[in-house]
Amino acid sequence: MPCHFAPGLKPFPVPVDQDGIRVEELGRLAAQAVIVTPAHQYPTGVALSPGRRAALLEWAVRNNAIVTEDDYDAEYRYDRDPVGALQGLAPDHVIYAGSASKILAPGLRLGWLLLPGHLTGALSSEKTHADLGSDVTAQLALANFIETGELDRHLRRTRRTYRARRAALIDAIHTHLPDAQIQGVAAGLHVLAILPSETSETKLTAAAAARGVSVHGLSRHRANPTAGPPGLILGYANLPEPAIKRGIRELAIARKQTRARVGRRR
Amino acid sequence: MPCHFAPGLKPFPVPVDQDGIRVEELGRLAAQAVIVTPAHQYPTGVALSPGRRAALLEWAVRNNAIVTEDDYDAEYRYDRDPVGALQGLAPDHVIYAGSASKILAPGLRLGWLLLPGHLTGALSSEKTHADLGSDVTAQLALANFIETGELDRHLRRTRRTYRARRAALIDAIHTHLPDAQIQGVAAGLHVLAILPSETSETKLTAAAAARGVSVHGLSRHRANPTAGPPGLILGYANLPEPAIKRGIRELAIARKQTRARVGRRR
Repeated sequence: MPCHFAPGLKPFPVPVDQDGIRVEELGRLAAQAVIVTPAHQYPTGVALSPGRRAALLEWAVRNNAIVTEDDYDAEYRYDRDPVGALQGLAPDHVIYAGSASKILAPGLRLGWLLLPGHLTGALSSEKTHADLGSDVTAQLALANFIETGELDRHLRRTRRTYRARRAALIDAIHTHLPDAQIQGVAAGLHVLAILPSETSETKLTAAAAARGVSVHGLSRHRANPTAGPPGLILGYANLPEPAIKRGIRELAIARKQTRARVGRRR
Repeated sequence: MPCHFAPGLKPFPVPVDQDGIRVEELGRLAAQAVIVTPAHQYPTGVALSPGRRAALLEWAVRNNAIVTEDDYDAEYRYDRDPVGALQGLAPDHVIYAGSASKILAPGLRLGWLLLPGHLTGALSSEKTHADLGSDVTAQLALANFIETGELDRHLRRTRRTYRARRAALIDAIHTHLPDAQIQGVAAGLHVLAILPSETSETKLTAAAAARGVSVHGLSRHRANPTAGPPGLILGYANLPEPAIKRGIRELAIARKQTRARVGRRR
């Protein structure tokens, strides 16, 4: 995914496996800060394992580095209680970032940071220079929504909805794309499906788009787009269950079409 | 006023007189872009004269430069119809910027740009990278407010309110600060009052603050803070008329106090 970094910041990609970010690889870099999504890595869907959580915080303390914890999906865990944030374990080394984008609506453009004390002044100043602050009416509405308990009720309701949508999606994948491997923990609003190595992500996503199904390939999120197996990122946040089933059926048809075309060319 | 410029941009101050920006001084610089507030210069309150408007656009066309027209106060003109925007006269060289901050509320954080066609893609991309767009609910509410004619009604109502507040402010200045010279056209939400050269802006604003009156000195807006006579920027947007009169009375008392203190020190 293309990223926009302020001049002077140089991004280093760090490998991720089933336990999350590989902290020993991070340790080989000269990085002074790392961005992680421990509750639900995007796009692989894995959670940061307990051992890696400890190793990551050790790395930060040893190197006096900053971990930015993007906790974007933490409220939606379906198989167990949400994992606690890293921030509470090392508050002087972790910037915690939360957002209303997944739990309410991206269009609100609201988020929040918990900062190590020594960064508060600098971050407040950056925010002032960037936009003089966020929409006050939306902030007041969100504060009211939280204070009256409506956010908790909304999360309980939507957690049930998204759990059912996820189940419908996985069921449809098993039925229509039986050779796809589903990655990651039961959480969040997307599933990563790994496909057999001969699959062309480009052709498949184009054929799916032609059938009205918009899906992203995994390669666009890789530092090296050709480095691993093909995959699809399947979002289910705003699709009712029948639409999810129809979508996966269409995706399976698109897949047969691309294979048929490959066959004809031979 | 301290400004925050993206790396690579170098600001040049350009003098302003009773006719607005001195375009001949601008012509001596290597500037490729200029930011102006033609309807009501901040903080001097002058309007860009017809001759200067023409000269500024000529400068832009001749140098293939960009004029950013911040039209922040255009809706509030009390002595005549609002002056037309520069943008319509040279749409390929003017970026027009409007805002809901003065006409509705700064807390909405909404504004709009009219761009030369060749800049649309780059600006859209910058906006996406900066914040992924502004609050959608606020944009929808504003669109509805405009479409239903409520914004026009609001402007007609607030124009009367602000005209009366401005009149009350000027009346109070004449009564309590008779040696202050009021600058600029009958427009907007602030008045610039120039004070006799022996006045200490710093002492006066501090003494006023101690009496509950928050005013800004003119020097903080100068490129060279000691370059001209002292002055005060007096905002009246959110003060009812009795509060304006009380405020100027308190300011006059603060002024006497600072003079008295100066006297005692001698």
